[in-house]
Amino acid sequence: MIRPERDAFGQEIWAYFQGKRAFEVVERDDGFIDISRGAPDYFLPFKKWPKIEKQAIKFAKGKILDVGAGAGRVSLYLQKRGFAVTAIDNSPLAIQVCKKRGVKQAQVLPFEKISIFKTGSFNTVIMFGNNFGLFGSLKKAKTLLRELHRITTPSALIIAETTDPYKTDDPAHLSYQKLNKKRGRLPGQLRIRIRFRNYVGEWFDYLMVAKEEMKKILKDTGWRVKRFIGSEKAKYIAIIEKIRAFREPFHRRNC
Amino acid sequence: MIRPERDAFGQEIWAYFQGKRAFEVVERDDGFIDISRGAPDYFLPFKKWPKIEKQAIKFAKGKILDVGAGAGRVSLYLQKRGFAVTAIDNSPLAIQVCKKRGVKQAQVLPFEKISIFKTGSFNTVIMFGNNFGLFGSLKKAKTLLRELHRITTPSALIIAETTDPYKTDDPAHLSYQKLNKKRGRLPGQLRIRIRFRNYVGEWFDYLMVAKEEMKKILKDTGWRVKRFIGSEKAKYIAIIEKIRAFREPFHRRNC
Repeated sequence: MIRPERDAFGQEIWAYFQGKRAFEVVERDDGFIDISRGAPDYFLPFKKWPKIEKQAIKFAKGKILDVGAGAGRVSLYLQKRGFAVTAIDNSPLAIQVCKKRGVKQAQVLPFEKISIFKTGSFNTVIMFGNNFGLFGSLKKAKTLLRELHRITTPSALIIAETTDPYKTDDPAHLSYQKLNKKRGRLPGQLRIRIRFRNYVGEWFDYLMVAKEEMKKILKDTGWRVKRFIGSEKAKYIAIIEKIRAFREPFHRRNC
Repeated sequence: MIRPERDAFGQEIWAYFQGKRAFEVVERDDGFIDISRGAPDYFLPFKKWPKIEKQAIKFAKGKILDVGAGAGRVSLYLQKRGFAVTAIDNSPLAIQVCKKRGVKQAQVLPFEKISIFKTGSFNTVIMFGNNFGLFGSLKKAKTLLRELHRITTPSALIIAETTDPYKTDDPAHLSYQKLNKKRGRLPGQLRIRIRFRNYVGEWFDYLMVAKEEMKKILKDTGWRVKRFIGSEKAKYIAIIEKIRAFREPFHRRNC
């Protein structure tokens, strides 16, 4: 459980929820610092969502897992549309805000701990706002995709948003990608932490991938891309489906 | 001379000048992080200046020294009004922007190096946008005020803006003030550095004072407050004049 003083992300959401000034500073492990839109975006009502999210959300169905729910904007929208949604986030303060805003099923849970859910629990997994990034690394993504395979129904979908890291001409980002390659990481595998006022979050890996990289990550996990939404800009969303005939390689070898 | 990679303040101004995205992250030595309005404010045209600055600038006269000139907004305004202005800033990139924007006399010079100016050079010293803060500490302020006394004419004025640090109920700021007291610093003596993208500025002391503290700082320096402008909010400006009969204490003792 993240202690409140390390929950920079949650503190920022909590401040904004209380009508106080909120901002989000993102520090990368090469010393690069940036401010992101932060809190206001985590509260965006449906009508102000990016166009690609409005298109992609139409694929949502049945019981839904909202991964990295933040302030609950996606969960609240889906709940209102009549879906049963479970919102998870590793930030206790974010989940507190989700609950106060009316998300019925919201729980503090790091993505790495989704093994607590029973087999076939969800029909849809949503990872909006760059939250494909929560897969962290190639290795972690493979593990978590297999786990997602288990906790979802046979016709389940993952709807995940990311940013193509190569669609930039910023020298600072390009040299960071080089650094990542050199240390054996995916070029878009950002090691970052959130800072807000006196709150400093823990370092974590947030993975940005191009479309071809995403396909490689999905390989041998039982998932494949059904379609991509968005292609002009760096941001895009993948609708990911299960390969029906898929058996885990381990099992196949035992047939 | 600040190297370009440590000139975070100048880089931010340079980016904004080139029409690029600019922001200013301020990191305090207790780990508190904030974003300030930054670059856009350093370029503000006169009509958008805060009311107290519009009132205070009327006191400007003769040859003017603009301390911490930033992107030159004050120098440019005064120059247009017909005054002879010398803009100084320790940031090489900020001074480059000043020059490109038309400031005729702009030079890279840390405030600590004003001893290079001849006796009686200036009629007015301007320190807008919290730049009273550049006095840094009680001790440094005393030294620099005496130096300013020497390089200005007998009827000279200092027009300096600061923020009363006690006009806050923010627990993070109040506990920082306590920390400062404990380590023998003035409560509003902020130790900060500027960060922008991959640029990390050097740590420096930026001094915020209440009106009574300012009076104490001016004591025995040959300067006194003529009047304060602004008293409802935390920000205020002091019009500071020379004590005509003033002799430095050392000389007095030798009479």
